[in-house]
Amino acid sequence: MPEAGHEAPLDRMFVALADGSRRAMIDQLSRGPASVSDLARPLGIALPSALKHLAVLEAGGIVRSDKSGRVRTYRITPDAFAALEAWISARKAHWTREFDRLADYLDGEEQ
Amino acid sequence: MPEAGHEAPLDRMFVALADGSRRAMIDQLSRGPASVSDLARPLGIALPSALKHLAVLEAGGIVRSDKSGRVRTYRITPDAFAALEAWISARKAHWTREFDRLADYLDGEEQ
Repeated sequence: MPEAGHEAPLDRMFVALADGSRRAMIDQLSRGPASVSDLARPLGIALPSALKHLAVLEAGGIVRSDKSGRVRTYRITPDAFAALEAWISARKAHWTREFDRLADYLDGEEQ
Repeated sequence: MPEAGHEAPLDRMFVALADGSRRAMIDQLSRGPASVSDLARPLGIALPSALKHLAVLEAGGIVRSDKSGRVRTYRITPDAFAALEAWISARKAHWTREFDRLADYLDGEEQ
């Protein structure tokens, strides 16, 4: 298996995104910082369950948290998804070229 | 849990991406179509294992396959990741606004 250790951060990011409740938390956090109870309430889930989801999101590099006094506040990581976007656009460049080559080939066939 | 059924296609897409071997297959397929054995060889994995990964990629809408005679060929789905990109850019728009508001606030504080 090539590059196994190397791939782990992307693995964790995609795992973090592969759940509707976690994506709903990202939606809410993209509108501003929130506490665990702010995030648990609209989902109708218990705090321990919300904390588990938030731990997965933190492991995936998507959210971070700060504790001020007794309150822990969660927010989106400023460069969240930059790595993901870079990964997607590199692949897209490849396969756009692939489709262009196919189109050129088909144009050639028509003449 | 809101929108549970609704979220399933995105769940399956992110699960498909959360594995280094599957991302290596996407890399290879973004350079052109390939057979199962073409895809298994560089990863050093057995055909049944490669077929399992390809089934997860097909369920996630990332690759599709066609059978011509006895040969099944895999290729990237033309609009692969369009949904994913739309999802990312919607969230990014939100949190860019959020950072702008924070910057405005800090500018105000300085004066």
